[in-house]
Amino acid sequence: MASPEIEALTQALARLPGLGPRSARRAVLHLLKKREAALGPLRAALEAVDERLETCATCGNVDTANPCAICADPRRDQRSLCVVEEVADLWALERSRLFPGRFHVLGGRLSALEGIRPEDLAIDALVTRIEAGGIDEVVLAMNATLEGQTTAHYLADRIERFPVRVTQLAHGLPVGGELDYLDEGTLAQALRARRPV
Amino acid sequence: MASPEIEALTQALARLPGLGPRSARRAVLHLLKKREAALGPLRAALEAVDERLETCATCGNVDTANPCAICADPRRDQRSLCVVEEVADLWALERSRLFPGRFHVLGGRLSALEGIRPEDLAIDALVTRIEAGGIDEVVLAMNATLEGQTTAHYLADRIERFPVRVTQLAHGLPVGGELDYLDEGTLAQALRARRPV
Repeated sequence: MASPEIEALTQALARLPGLGPRSARRAVLHLLKKREAALGPLRAALEAVDERLETCATCGNVDTANPCAICADPRRDQRSLCVVEEVADLWALERSRLFPGRFHVLGGRLSALEGIRPEDLAIDALVTRIEAGGIDEVVLAMNATLEGQTTAHYLADRIERFPVRVTQLAHGLPVGGELDYLDEGTLAQALRARRPV
Repeated sequence: MASPEIEALTQALARLPGLGPRSARRAVLHLLKKREAALGPLRAALEAVDERLETCATCGNVDTANPCAICADPRRDQRSLCVVEEVADLWALERSRLFPGRFHVLGGRLSALEGIRPEDLAIDALVTRIEAGGIDEVVLAMNATLEGQTTAHYLADRIERFPVRVTQLAHGLPVGGELDYLDEGTLAQALRARRPV
């Protein structure tokens, strides 16, 4: 019988996506065997993330500064706004270094199945940003999934009344694919060929 | 591009067995999305393990006390010692609540392939414990692998000169096992060790 501390750590790890109870137990044993090399660094990394990272009040990115480095960067194109579902999608686009503007993270996608409604996402905040003016183009960079595309259409409807060009990533994305898993070449194609909705 | 804190956490998680770079990234995103429900508890659990747990100097178990709760328990049979490869094996036996004695954790198994020699395991400490006297039986509870069995034979040779009974876990059909699905090695062992009904 392991101690309560070990049980608690096993359960906390088992709740991570990709780990179950058995692999969490293996991970805990690994951490206990390599306290210096594995447990220490993981603990320090978690502490740093927990203490230093905050969510950007403007765009929803996660960074050490608020507003985040992207929002605060004067060299970024202020007239161009890219809307993504998750922070991971923002990172994927940033890795490709192709989008010169700023971002808006919705925090998910509309989903009847999961009961995620417009008010559960940062959509009002997006409308407020566009309403404030100074934006020429809104790129809807949703995942090419049914729910992502539904979300894009809903957003296009909500944004229609503003004098901005609304575009979406070209269908170079494989159907069913998610941004985070795409190679940069495909991402580049999709961004370059973006079209009006 | 994620912040250095996030990259560090991703790398620390990716080094856990069962997680790779991609699943570590997913796990980090999950932690960032559920800071209260997931990141906080995981951080607290890691801290508790790191700060409160130590390795029992007697048996090699991991516990909040040193000597551990098992070694310190006067109701455990002091005359019976069970030798296991890893702490996980000790926990598995404790879950079964069947072994009344105490334990000795080797910290691995002999392995020519991985270059693990007798002096890399807690074998001298085991010999010292037996030499000190008061032990009647040593149960060698190694894994039923080639390396586990090699280790058991090596230990049996080292312990031979002491007046203790040396036993090992029986090999045979696992409970619920079907003949048709068993490997020949297990079948051979089960047949060789057959007993009167």
